[in-house]
Amino acid sequence: MNAIEVCFTPDLIEQHELNGKIAIVTDIFRATTCMVSGLANGVESITPVISVEECLSLQKLGYLAGGERHAQRIEGFDLDNSPFSYMREEVKGKKIAMTTTNGTLSINKAKPTAKEVWVGAFLNLSAVANALQKENMDVVVICAGWKGRPGLEDILFAGALVEKLKDSHEVADDSALMAHRLFLLGENNLLNYVQGASHLKRLKNLGGGLDIPHCLAFDQYDILAVMNGDELVLRP
Amino acid sequence: MNAIEVCFTPDLIEQHELNGKIAIVTDIFRATTCMVSGLANGVESITPVISVEECLSLQKLGYLAGGERHAQRIEGFDLDNSPFSYMREEVKGKKIAMTTTNGTLSINKAKPTAKEVWVGAFLNLSAVANALQKENMDVVVICAGWKGRPGLEDILFAGALVEKLKDSHEVADDSALMAHRLFLLGENNLLNYVQGASHLKRLKNLGGGLDIPHCLAFDQYDILAVMNGDELVLRP
Repeated sequence: MNAIEVCFTPDLIEQHELNGKIAIVTDIFRATTCMVSGLANGVESITPVISVEECLSLQKLGYLAGGERHAQRIEGFDLDNSPFSYMREEVKGKKIAMTTTNGTLSINKAKPTAKEVWVGAFLNLSAVANALQKENMDVVVICAGWKGRPGLEDILFAGALVEKLKDSHEVADDSALMAHRLFLLGENNLLNYVQGASHLKRLKNLGGGLDIPHCLAFDQYDILAVMNGDELVLRP
Repeated sequence: MNAIEVCFTPDLIEQHELNGKIAIVTDIFRATTCMVSGLANGVESITPVISVEECLSLQKLGYLAGGERHAQRIEGFDLDNSPFSYMREEVKGKKIAMTTTNGTLSINKAKPTAKEVWVGAFLNLSAVANALQKENMDVVVICAGWKGRPGLEDILFAGALVEKLKDSHEVADDSALMAHRLFLLGENNLLNYVQGASHLKRLKNLGGGLDIPHCLAFDQYDILAVMNGDELVLRP
């Protein structure tokens, strides 16, 4: 039986052995929700980068620049960090360079050591789980959180994945155990269950409240988003 | 209203502002359970130190040396890390120097910045909560975990404290929110609810299984254990 463990924030990534494992990065509000929405709607690729400057450099090469700082749009960028921006007609077929406070950072932290890095969201939960069941590899779910602190919504996604994989992957740490129990408590009404989460309040205050139901919708897309070199792309 | 936040492991302590706040350090299996048991049973003071060498130096000055590495007794030490060792007749009136992998480390990490550092365990939960309600200060619960990773039992204690303080301290982060929800799920049968916790398995394998019910017993002692300089002592 393979194993699944959960890393509550990218600040704890050194606690986890990623070698030979698949890292599933999740940032439900909203980076990985944007990424999955974009790739499902025809975006060619998304290149996660650490800095605003790298994004702007890639913009000069023809990429669209997307992302946020402090959950807000960045000056000179084409796209903010709302999933609906990544679903517009004009982004189809485009390459996007993206930088966010937590999600793209987590991807870039996992990349050097994990065997594979995939991106997960509630939107493609079952697709991720089904694909993982076909791989003979251990899984580490990396929750992006907020500036190093754990975020409820990401941990709920991790718990959802533990639940989906319960017949193929044993729970390998207390974080996975807790994520699983929290998810089972909230799964029938996620929207209600995430009330009180700090990131939800932050989003609502910044006018991102309309994104929330989309971020929490299960299985809207039957796609896999995987890192291939420096680009996140659909896995055929 | 004051606030309560929860730090899931000492590796995340830099994420929390401890200045002007009371830090409650908890390491249920077993450091803070030992400390509370010892002070409640007549130990004069417990000095938490980082290294085995410091413990042995203090031993030469007349302290008893206690603690563990890898959850096991240390060569040359007078006491292991079982709470029952700290309740024996011969430790009464003695000063103990103690070093453990997670608990004493957490205390020493909190000490430089927190206004006060107290130690908490299920054994003195209500005493801690009642005392906190009389202080006009924010609270950060620091969960010792295991080698930097979150541990279920410590997070349950944090959740228990959130529950006890719900009328006086607002939940200030998602970690406190999650700890609270997990505690409410498990409070009526903690012994059953911690089955599956990695530290519980570790303890049982090392013969520490008999300690577990004591570690999870609510309100056996109406005492406060607080850091005073380098020593943990009873607060009168």
